[in-house]
Amino acid sequence: MNISVVRVPAASPSDIGSLRAYIEEGRIHPSQVIAVLGKTEGNGCVNDFTRGYAVQSLRGFFAGLIGAEAADRISFIMSGGTEGVLAPHFTVISRSETSETATASIGSKSLAVGVAHTRRFLPEELGRSAQIVEVSAAVSRAMAEARIEAAADVHFVQIKCPLLTDTDMANARARGAEVAVDDTYKSMGYSRGASALGAAVALGEIDLAEISDEDVCQSWDKYSEVASTSSGSELDYCEVIVFGNSAQASGDLYMSHGVMADAIDAKPLLAMLADNPGAEVVQVLAKAEADPTGLVRGRRHTMLNDSDINHTRHARAAVGAVLASIVGDPMIYVSGGAEHQGPAGGGPVAVIFRRANA
Amino acid sequence: MNISVVRVPAASPSDIGSLRAYIEEGRIHPSQVIAVLGKTEGNGCVNDFTRGYAVQSLRGFFAGLIGAEAADRISFIMSGGTEGVLAPHFTVISRSETSETATASIGSKSLAVGVAHTRRFLPEELGRSAQIVEVSAAVSRAMAEARIEAAADVHFVQIKCPLLTDTDMANARARGAEVAVDDTYKSMGYSRGASALGAAVALGEIDLAEISDEDVCQSWDKYSEVASTSSGSELDYCEVIVFGNSAQASGDLYMSHGVMADAIDAKPLLAMLADNPGAEVVQVLAKAEADPTGLVRGRRHTMLNDSDINHTRHARAAVGAVLASIVGDPMIYVSGGAEHQGPAGGGPVAVIFRRANA
Amino acid sequence: MNISVVRVPAASPSDIGSLRAYIEEGRIHPSQVIAVLGKTEGNGCVNDFTRGYAVQSLRGFFAGLIGAEAADRISFIMSGGTEGVLAPHFTVISRSETSETATASIGSKSLAVGVAHTRRFLPEELGRSAQIVEVSAAVSRAMAEARIEAAADVHFVQIKCPLLTDTDMANARARGAEVAVDDTYKSMGYSRGASALGAAVALGEIDLAEISDEDVCQSWDKYSEVASTSSGSELDYCEVIVFGNSAQASGDLYMSHGVMADAIDAKPLLAMLADNPGAEVVQVLAKAEADPTGLVRGRRHTMLNDSDINHTRHARAAVGAVLASIVGDPMIYVSGGAEHQGPAGGGPVAVIFRRANA
Amino acid sequence: MNISVVRVPAASPSDIGSLRAYIEEGRIHPSQVIAVLGKTEGNGCVNDFTRGYAVQSLRGFFAGLIGAEAADRISFIMSGGTEGVLAPHFTVISRSETSETATASIGSKSLAVGVAHTRRFLPEELGRSAQIVEVSAAVSRAMAEARIEAAADVHFVQIKCPLLTDTDMANARARGAEVAVDDTYKSMGYSRGASALGAAVALGEIDLAEISDEDVCQSWDKYSEVASTSSGSELDYCEVIVFGNSAQASGDLYMSHGVMADAIDAKPLLAMLADNPGAEVVQVLAKAEADPTGLVRGRRHTMLNDSDINHTRHARAAVGAVLASIVGDPMIYVSGGAEHQGPAGGGPVAVIFRRANA
Repeated sequence: MNISVVRVPAASPSDIGSLRAYIEEGRIHPSQVIAVLGKTEGNGCVNDFTRGYAVQSLRGFFAGLIGAEAADRISFIMSGGTEGVLAPHFTVISRSETSETATASIGSKSLAVGVAHTRRFLPEELGRSAQIVEVSAAVSRAMAEARIEAAADVHFVQIKCPLLTDTDMANARARGAEVAVDDTYKSMGYSRGASALGAAVALGEIDLAEISDEDVCQSWDKYSEVASTSSGSELDYCEVIVFGNSAQASGDLYMSHGVMADAIDAKPLLAMLADNPGAEVVQVLAKAEADPTGLVRGRRHTMLNDSDINHTRHARAAVGAVLASIVGDPMIYVSGGAEHQGPAGGGPVAVIFRRANA
Repeated sequence: MNISVVRVPAASPSDIGSLRAYIEEGRIHPSQVIAVLGKTEGNGCVNDFTRGYAVQSLRGFFAGLIGAEAADRISFIMSGGTEGVLAPHFTVISRSETSETATASIGSKSLAVGVAHTRRFLPEELGRSAQIVEVSAAVSRAMAEARIEAAADVHFVQIKCPLLTDTDMANARARGAEVAVDDTYKSMGYSRGASALGAAVALGEIDLAEISDEDVCQSWDKYSEVASTSSGSELDYCEVIVFGNSAQASGDLYMSHGVMADAIDAKPLLAMLADNPGAEVVQVLAKAEADPTGLVRGRRHTMLNDSDINHTRHARAAVGAVLASIVGDPMIYVSGGAEHQGPAGGGPVAVIFRRANA
Repeated sequence: MNISVVRVPAASPSDIGSLRAYIEEGRIHPSQVIAVLGKTEGNGCVNDFTRGYAVQSLRGFFAGLIGAEAADRISFIMSGGTEGVLAPHFTVISRSETSETATASIGSKSLAVGVAHTRRFLPEELGRSAQIVEVSAAVSRAMAEARIEAAADVHFVQIKCPLLTDTDMANARARGAEVAVDDTYKSMGYSRGASALGAAVALGEIDLAEISDEDVCQSWDKYSEVASTSSGSELDYCEVIVFGNSAQASGDLYMSHGVMADAIDAKPLLAMLADNPGAEVVQVLAKAEADPTGLVRGRRHTMLNDSDINHTRHARAAVGAVLASIVGDPMIYVSGGAEHQGPAGGGPVAVIFRRANA
Repeated sequence: MNISVVRVPAASPSDIGSLRAYIEEGRIHPSQVIAVLGKTEGNGCVNDFTRGYAVQSLRGFFAGLIGAEAADRISFIMSGGTEGVLAPHFTVISRSETSETATASIGSKSLAVGVAHTRRFLPEELGRSAQIVEVSAAVSRAMAEARIEAAADVHFVQIKCPLLTDTDMANARARGAEVAVDDTYKSMGYSRGASALGAAVALGEIDLAEISDEDVCQSWDKYSEVASTSSGSELDYCEVIVFGNSAQASGDLYMSHGVMADAIDAKPLLAMLADNPGAEVVQVLAKAEADPTGLVRGRRHTMLNDSDINHTRHARAAVGAVLASIVGDPMIYVSGGAEHQGPAGGGPVAVIFRRANA
C-alpha cells in the first residue's frame, strides 16, 4: 500500500478548479482517491451548508471522472470553519497497491490509511453507548483495512458523525424515545464526544466497561489522544478514517502525533518538528476547543459567554493561528469541538511528514 | 520619573474588584495613575459599548478615590475585542516623580510614558490631513512630557481616536461638508489610519510633505512601526500615550518593539525574548489586521469576505493566540485594525520588560 | 395613586440627554419615578453589557438628582435587543399619591403599578420550585402595593431575574449542589420560565401543587398570560413590577392585554385597538420567542438552527415589526424569550392606554 | 400563454424532496418551468453559499429530468436570508402556450411572465449608465416576450445582476479603466441600484436623460416602484424576469403591486387585499432595506450601526414579519437591499393573486 496526501486550495466550497488542475498535472489520480478531508468556510455549526455544498460539488466532479458508483465510495469529510488565518482547502488522500517492495528502508513504517463506516443511527442512539460501541468497531475495521497492527501506530482517527436536527428529535419523540440532548447545537458535541470515546475504546485508551451514557460530555478525563470528530447534518451514520504507520505500507510519508494541553500549547508540534529534522510537513491535523473551565493558563477567556460568535469558532481561530505560525502555513486542518479528544481545553495534533531524504 | 505597569484582570467591563484589591494591597497608588489601557469583551466594532462602559466604571471608581477632577486627568483607552484566548483586563500605568537617583545602572534608560490629546475634530476632518497634523503634534507633546529624547527610543504610541457616527455624517452634510468616508464601520479604519500616519510623521518615519488625504487607507507602504490606534464613539478628539525609554527615567522597566510581517509572524517577539534573557515580560502590546491582499503566506484567508464576523475580530483572535502562545499568557493587549500601523497585514508588537536582576 | 408613563428615546445605552430634557420640561419628576423599563441595543443574550451600562448610567444620573439612596429604590429593568425596527428607549414609570378624588369617572379603574423583589437566590435554586415560590410571593406583594384587588386586573407582570454564570455554576459545584442547567445561555430561559410560572401561580393561572421542577422549560401548556420575564447577570434576585388597573388609582391611564398565539398574530393588538376607540396608545409591551416546534403557521422557520444569530434576536425582530406596524411606532417594548409567558411560540401583549377624553 | 406559480417548501438549500413530490403529483411540469425564485437560509451577504448550493442542486435535479441544456435555460434566482419568520422555499414559475381561448372573463388580463438578459458587462460598466441602458432594453424585451403592452401592467421586475470581484477590479485597472466602487460588498448595492434604475427607465418612471452615473446609490428619490434586484458573483450580465398582466395571457392568476413607504408600512398590502376580495394570495414578493436616515417613523433604528448582524438581515426580518402577519403566511419572498427600488427605507411589494371564482 502506498498513500499519497495532496493539499488542494479551494476558492469556495464548490471550487474544483485547483483539484482539476492537480489531476491534469498527474499529481492526483482520481481512481486512487479514497478520502477527501476538507476545511470549508462556513460557521462550522448547525446551519453550515458549506460542508454539504463541498461534498455535492466534489462527488459530482469525481462522478464525472470515475463514475457515480466509484465516487460514492470516496469518503468526503468536511469540517466547517476557517476562522482567523485558516485557509479553505481539501486534503486528498489516495491509496495505491504496489507489487514493488516498500521503498522505505527496512524496518521503517509508512503512512497507511483505512476507512470504514458504522450503520445508521436512530436519533436516540446518538451521544450514547450505542454510538460508542459502533464507532469502536468501525475504527477497528478501518485499522485492519489500513493494515496497522498496533494501536500505538495509529496517529489520527478522523470521524464524521451525525447531529440531531429538530426533525430527528420530533421523530424520536413521536416514537416515545428520548434523545440524549434536546438542543441541536449541543447534540453536535454529544455526537462528537461519543465518537471520540468509541475511538478511545478501539485503541485501548479506555475500557468499554468503564464508560456509560453519563460519561459523554461529562467525564473529561476520559479521552482519546488521536480522535478528531466532526458532526454535521449531512449523514446519519459515522464515517471513520484511520491514519497511522504500517510496516506493510511503502512510500515516503509517515505520521506522528502529540497532545496539546490547551489552546496555546505549542510544545507538541514544536517537539515533533524537532524530532523529525529535515522532514517536510505535508499536513497538520488538529482539534480545537474552548476550555470548559473558562480559563486558559489561569486567565479568563470569553469564548463560552459569547452569544455573537460560537465558542468553536473562537477556538479554531486561536489554535489554527498558533499551529500555522509554527509551521509557517495556514492551509492546515484544524477542526473545532474537541469533546473527549485530548484533555479538556486541549486536543490532538498530528503531522503527516515526508521523509527527509525521500 | 518612575513608571509602574500593572495588569489587572477584569471579570466584566464594569468589574473593578481586582483593581480595588490591587490598590488595597498597595500595588497601585490611585493618585499616580496616568493611564489605563484596557481590553474589553465587546465586538471592537461600531456598536461596542463595553469600551464606554469600562471607562464610565473606571472613572467613577477613581473619582471616588481621588476626586472627579483628578480622575478626569487619567487617560482611559479601551480596545474592544477579546476573541479567541485573549483575556479581558486593564493595564494600569502609574508615574511617580522620584528625587532619588535612578536605580538603573548608569547609562541605561528606563520606561517613560507621556500623555497628550488633540483638539476636538469636525466630522469632515477625520481620516484626513487635519487629523494627521494634530495627532503628530500631540505625539510630540507626549514625547516631551515623557522626556524621551529620540524617536528611536519610542516603542509604542497608543492613540484612541473618534469614528464617524450616522449623526456625525448628517451634521457634516447639513453644513455642506463632505466626510472622508460615508460608512460608520469604514470610518473606524480611516480614523485609525490617519492617527497612525500622524505618529509616523512625529517620529520621522514619514515626511509630512509626502502625505495627502489620498494616502489614508490607500498607500499601505506608508506606516509607523510603533503606532497602535483604536477608534471608538466615546470621544471626538484623539488621546495619545507615548511609551519609550528615557535616560531621565528610573525604575526596573524598559521597552522594546518589533514589527510582525503578517498575522502569524512569531519572529519579532521570539527575537525580543531571545535578546532579553532573564527579563520578565510585564506586558505585550500588539496590533492585528486582516491582510488586505486576502492572502497570508500565499494562502487565501476568509476574513474579508465574512459577513457574519468582522475581519478585525478574526485578526485579533489569530494574532492574540500566536503571541499568547509564545509568552504563555493570554492576558495581553492585542488590538485590531492596523491601518498604517506596520506593513499591510502585519503590525507592531512591543514588550514591556522588567530587568532581569531588578 | 396616580401613575404616569413616559417613553424617552435613548441615543445609546448611556444616553440620558432626552431624559434630562424631559425632567427639565417637567414631564418627569425624578422623585416620583419608581421604575424604568428599558430596551437597550445589545444582543439580549449572555454577553449583553448594554443592560448593565444603561442601569449604571441611569442610576448615576438619578443619584445626582435625588441622592444615591432614593435612586437605589428605583427599579431599573433593561431588556437587551432592538433588532429590526425596534428603537432603544426607556419607559419611565412614576407614581404620585394624590389626596384628590380620582379624576376618572366613577366606577372606572386606572393604571396602578407596584414593585417588589425576592430574596437572593442560590445558583441551584434558579429555574426551579424555589424561584417559582419566591416570585409568586413577590408578585402578590407588588399587587398589594399597587392596590390591585383582582388577578383579572393585572395586565402585565415584568420580572427581571438572574442567570447562571460560569462562576455561579462553579460555586454551586464546589458546594456539591447541582444546578438546573449547566449552560449559561440556557439558564436564561430556565430563570425566565420559573419566574413566569411564579407569576402564573400568584395570579391563579396555575395551581402551585401542579408544578414541579420538571415542568420548567418543558410543560409549555403551563403559562401566564401576563408575565414578561427577562434575565441578566446584573442581579441575583428577582425584581417584579406589576401593572394593572385599580379602583384606588386615579389618572387617565389604564391597561389591557391579549395573548399572541404566534409571532405573526396581529389579532390581539388589533382587537385591543378596536375595543378602545379614540384611546391613545402610550406604550405596547410584549414578549417574543421562536416557536419551539420549528414552525410558524405550518411553515419552517430557521431561528432555532441559526448559529450566527440567536433565536431570541430573530423573534424580537419579527414580533417587534408586526406590533410596530400596527401601532405605527417602533419605540415599543418587545422582549425576547417567552418561556411560560403565553403559549409556546406566542406571548403576552399589553397596551397602556390614555383615556380618549382625558 | 398560461402562467402557473407554485411555492415549494425547502428543508435546506439542497432539498428537492418537495419539488420532486409536486412534480410527481403533476402540479409542476418540468419542461414548462421557466424560472425558480428562491429564498435560501444563508446570510444574504458576501459569503452566502446557500444561493449557489441551491442553484447547483436545482439545476442538477432538472438536468436529470429534462436534460442539461433545457435545465440551463431555466432562470434560477436565489435570494439569501430568511431572518425572523421567513420560510425557505422555491417559487416555481411555469409557462405553457395554450391554443384554447383565455379562460378568464373577456376583457380581463392574466399573469404573464417574460425573461431576457443583457450582454455581458465590463467591470467599469457596472453601477453606471451602461448598465442602466442595457437593463432598460432587456426589460423592454422581456415585456415584449410576456406580451405585456403597457408599463402600467408590469407589477414586478426581478433582476439578477453581477457584482465586482477583486479579480474584476484588477482586470479593469490593468486596462486603465476605473470601476464605480472599489469594494466588493458595496459593488453589490451599485449593481442592484443601476439595475433598478434601468427598470425605471424602461417603464417610464424616470427619463433616461435625467439620470447620470452620479445618481446611482445617491439620488434616492429616483426609483422604480416594481424593480427587485439582487446581485451575485455567478454571472457577468443581467437576467431579467418581468411579471405583469396581459390580455394575451389566459389563466386564473393575475398581479398587483404597491409601494411600502417604510419597513412597517402595512397599507399597500392591506389595500391590495381589500381591493381583491375573495382572491387567493398565491405569493407575496417584496424588497426590504434599512432606512438610510437611521430612522423609522422618527424613531432611531440600530440596523446600520450593528457590527454583529448586517442591516439587510435586520430589514428582511422586519419587513418579512409585517407582510407575513398580514397574509398569515411566512413562506413569502422578501429580499434585502432595495437601492432605487421604492423610496429610501421602503420598497415594492407585489402580490400574485388567484381569481376569486377560478
